[in-house]
Amino acid sequence: MSKIIELSGGVTAPAGFRAGGIYCGIKASSTKRDLALIYSEKPCIASAMFTTNKVKSACVIISQEHIADGVLRAIIANSGNANACTGEEGIASARKMANLAADLFAINPKQVAVASTGVIGVPLLISAIESSIEALGNSLQGDEAGHSAALEAIMTTDTRKKDGAVEAEINGKKIRIGAMLKGSGMIHPNMATMLCFITTDAAIDRDALDDSLRKVVKRSINRVTVDGDTSTNDMVIIMANGQAGNDAIKSGSSEHEVFTQALEKLCVKLSRSLARDGEGATKLLTVSVTGAVDEDSAELMAKSVAGSSLVKAAFFGADANWGRILCAMGYSGADFDPEKVDVIFASEGEEIMLCKNGASLPFSETDAKRILEREEIEIIINTGAGSGQAAAWGCDLTYDYVKINGDYRS
Amino acid sequence: MSKIIELSGGVTAPAGFRAGGIYCGIKASSTKRDLALIYSEKPCIASAMFTTNKVKSACVIISQEHIADGVLRAIIANSGNANACTGEEGIASARKMANLAADLFAINPKQVAVASTGVIGVPLLISAIESSIEALGNSLQGDEAGHSAALEAIMTTDTRKKDGAVEAEINGKKIRIGAMLKGSGMIHPNMATMLCFITTDAAIDRDALDDSLRKVVKRSINRVTVDGDTSTNDMVIIMANGQAGNDAIKSGSSEHEVFTQALEKLCVKLSRSLARDGEGATKLLTVSVTGAVDEDSAELMAKSVAGSSLVKAAFFGADANWGRILCAMGYSGADFDPEKVDVIFASEGEEIMLCKNGASLPFSETDAKRILEREEIEIIINTGAGSGQAAAWGCDLTYDYVKINGDYRS
Repeated sequence: MSKIIELSGGVTAPAGFRAGGIYCGIKASSTKRDLALIYSEKPCIASAMFTTNKVKSACVIISQEHIADGVLRAIIANSGNANACTGEEGIASARKMANLAADLFAINPKQVAVASTGVIGVPLLISAIESSIEALGNSLQGDEAGHSAALEAIMTTDTRKKDGAVEAEINGKKIRIGAMLKGSGMIHPNMATMLCFITTDAAIDRDALDDSLRKVVKRSINRVTVDGDTSTNDMVIIMANGQAGNDAIKSGSSEHEVFTQALEKLCVKLSRSLARDGEGATKLLTVSVTGAVDEDSAELMAKSVAGSSLVKAAFFGADANWGRILCAMGYSGADFDPEKVDVIFASEGEEIMLCKNGASLPFSETDAKRILEREEIEIIINTGAGSGQAAAWGCDLTYDYVKINGDYRS
Repeated sequence: MSKIIELSGGVTAPAGFRAGGIYCGIKASSTKRDLALIYSEKPCIASAMFTTNKVKSACVIISQEHIADGVLRAIIANSGNANACTGEEGIASARKMANLAADLFAINPKQVAVASTGVIGVPLLISAIESSIEALGNSLQGDEAGHSAALEAIMTTDTRKKDGAVEAEINGKKIRIGAMLKGSGMIHPNMATMLCFITTDAAIDRDALDDSLRKVVKRSINRVTVDGDTSTNDMVIIMANGQAGNDAIKSGSSEHEVFTQALEKLCVKLSRSLARDGEGATKLLTVSVTGAVDEDSAELMAKSVAGSSLVKAAFFGADANWGRILCAMGYSGADFDPEKVDVIFASEGEEIMLCKNGASLPFSETDAKRILEREEIEIIINTGAGSGQAAAWGCDLTYDYVKINGDYRS
């Protein structure tokens, strides 16, 4: 089995990709970039997943249309405005964004995906994008600086950059996968207000790429929850340009398995940093469920616990209120026997068991407090039924979450 | 159609009921009552609904068993400890509570329902209840003072008393319904950490009583959301002792309709005060959906909006961020056309439309702010599809919610 190596860098780590970002005038302050572009020298096999919200941003509608044939070459994205609930004008603006990017390279606009993130219900200032499009084209670079500028330009309330790259060997060729991810509030399983752009120089068949993306997103990004809201704009796009020179990866092959593993490693890393950067979050919570009847049950319970406001608030207060964890499992819809549940809190190699077979164990409040005051905490739940397991990622609920979201538009 | 009159008082407003409450030593501070009793001179036809959480408090398990034959005469309830996740010992304690109350009146323990609310996972101090049971019996009064003492004894983080009574005429006889309700955190549709005890002196058949309770709870208590968590302990119990002397109400009769209306009026009032008293809440939000394809769709959308953390935080900040409302409708699972949605904010006779046919309308931020700074705000949503309508009640998400829940056990 091929070894998967983590690299620095992001979407420009794979061969043949350039990226850039500028300030065009959508965000109020010119100190923050708000327009990003990712471009591949060669046409790419592409796959994508979009929000399941019934209310979809214009960018989602246009990108779904453009990716229908499975070929992309560029992504143009803005922050500061979601271009959602903006009617016909919003659709025209999203289409125009694709056209403007396509004109830069004299390519078909259908090879351009469009993304937006920011406030809902305000018309997008398309004129600002139009007058800055050449500057955006000129900002493209094939190195980490280009990647960083593009990533900065898709960030909103994010407080840290979320990116990464991995390398694996496939049929004697080194292939790379790189990514950037934006999101911090309104994050819930099924990709709420989350933009994730992934590039790879691997050659891969479209059905194999589709399959890898769906499997990996289910086990990573879709298991992150910050506040239970699922947005109008979310998307994850992967583009594969084949520049690594490997034989195209076939669905179901051992090479396909390596590619999926590499992609999962990258996306789990991004998912953890996404949860850690939840709006106002001070702690990363990993909920690991084992011993469930199957993976789906484990996932239901892990997500329910990671998403409970009461659990999240208790972790903010470093309060070992494990009863709330059982309670959140109880309304998850998963099948389990409450009297077989064990709950452990773990951090930095220390573990403390609080509940055994569904009932309280005596434990040291001092020990529990010490673990709960750390920045990364794992909640380990064993339901003693089978071999199903799943992890979900979340964060604590803090005063700052309320502050950030009480006055987002201002 | 009979007129329904609101009365002061609560569970002791109907004839033949007494109530009382004392401090027995479960709560840390003796300034707060923690043990309540409601008693009927005559056996009652009874109906109840319980939490759907898979993790059930011992009191839920015992009360479900005792109400199986549809006859009750007393309810004993404690606050300060949920007696949930407490294993076999918890079951024995709940059974003991019923026995202790039954001994007071020399009745069958099966005629006693048991309720608990408070922290999960800590053994219940049954000895405290045992040594105080006579004092509890002596505290019973047939007036408003008895009702108030009992209500105080089931409150936890509640900041206000939630109770009420109504009177209606049925076949020339005046019948009364009275109630008390406890709950402020962890409240979500399906009765999370909510105790509601309802008494009536109407004579009514058991199937008619069951039907009224189910219909009314669906349209009132189950449409309240505070934080999305559904608890281990919730129950609503109604006891009818027939002391009003009316002919027993038959299912499907016009008298049955009057009874259901009276019960709904009472329970909607309680539901509004439940939402208004959400932990840390400063505002009552009523979400009224009209024009949906049917009532169930309207309910899904109303609950989803009332339950959205982002909507709730925006209302805390008096931020007219209506896009979050459309977004929450979009992930509700209801069928609707986003391009036909109108959104209005209303309060104290003032209205402002922010969104027409799914797109933004120009509106005065000053006017919106004035409405949003009030204590009771209605979000009126028309989806322009049919005649389905439903209301749901919620509150804003505040710093105090986080504070209260960050350190609940301490």
